[in-house]
Amino acid sequence: MSLKSRIRAIPDFPKQGIVFRDITTLLKDATGFRIAIQKLVNRYSGRKIQKVVAIESRGFIIGSPLAFALGAGFVPIRKKGKLPSKTIGQEYESEYGIDALEIHEDAIEPGERILLVDDVLATGGTAHAACVLVNKLGGDIIENAFLIELSALEGREYLESRGVKVFSLEKFTDG
Amino acid sequence: MSLKSRIRAIPDFPKQGIVFRDITTLLKDATGFRIAIQKLVNRYSGRKIQKVVAIESRGFIIGSPLAFALGAGFVPIRKKGKLPSKTIGQEYESEYGIDALEIHEDAIEPGERILLVDDVLATGGTAHAACVLVNKLGGDIIENAFLIELSALEGREYLESRGVKVFSLEKFTDG
Repeated sequence: MSLKSRIRAIPDFPKQGIVFRDITTLLKDATGFRIAIQKLVNRYSGRKIQKVVAIESRGFIIGSPLAFALGAGFVPIRKKGKLPSKTIGQEYESEYGIDALEIHEDAIEPGERILLVDDVLATGGTAHAACVLVNKLGGDIIENAFLIELSALEGREYLESRGVKVFSLEKFTDG
Repeated sequence: MSLKSRIRAIPDFPKQGIVFRDITTLLKDATGFRIAIQKLVNRYSGRKIQKVVAIESRGFIIGSPLAFALGAGFVPIRKKGKLPSKTIGQEYESEYGIDALEIHEDAIEPGERILLVDDVLATGGTAHAACVLVNKLGGDIIENAFLIELSALEGREYLESRGVKVFSLEKFTDG
């Protein structure tokens, strides 16, 4: 059984006209979850990743086991106001409006090798804001890894045109 | 160096008078993060955990690598309105007011062996609401595991008096 077949489609969530790809049906399946994370581990083993930076909150579910298995540190990027110490922030335009992400200003040392992780690549707006934050702290982003990619929203093109490397385990081509 | 010494104290966050225990300084430390998760893995290996259920959103950071290392499925419990499919919900009183948690109604099969995970045990209100949700779906909760426990808030007593088993890696006794 493929990973893709374990991901549920939810029509009109969170808005009319959007088909939401629900990864919880993959995550709850012990085999599916293990295979998905292990594929990412295999890709990045030997790449000397020092920190996995993941985006709140489903990104944590993918990024944290990856950090553990790679022997890297884990850094959360969160929505505005959630991180308790000194932060830097970056606004971005998402599918659903204007939002802002933050990272602790002491989360990354200059030159550290960073893997950026989120669950879904849509328009690329969120991932790009996360890249800006990591770059401001001097991190060296090796790649952006996603569990799934919604190709029709052209997030890959958006990120690659800005010099960001993109990898996804599964692609949905219908939006 | 102990795990505890890697956790930063932030006075007056998110409210005046509360000392927030910031685990991000532990998480970003590759060695500290690996040791913390590995200790939990060692405790629950051989306990036949089928699903790790973790509470949004810092609970995801602890629960997800645990699920991966134990070969279990991963199930998120989220704040109201975040999960896309059919849910059941439970209100609870937190330190900061009334809130509600939800779980997908198809997340757990009756009789499955469940490990419940969150980052911090404070009053126990959140963890208890999560237990209610898992119990409603017929899950068999083996234990509630936390990275840290704020002993002065007596969450352990609250949970144990309701028949819930509690484990934490580190205790802070001063609130």
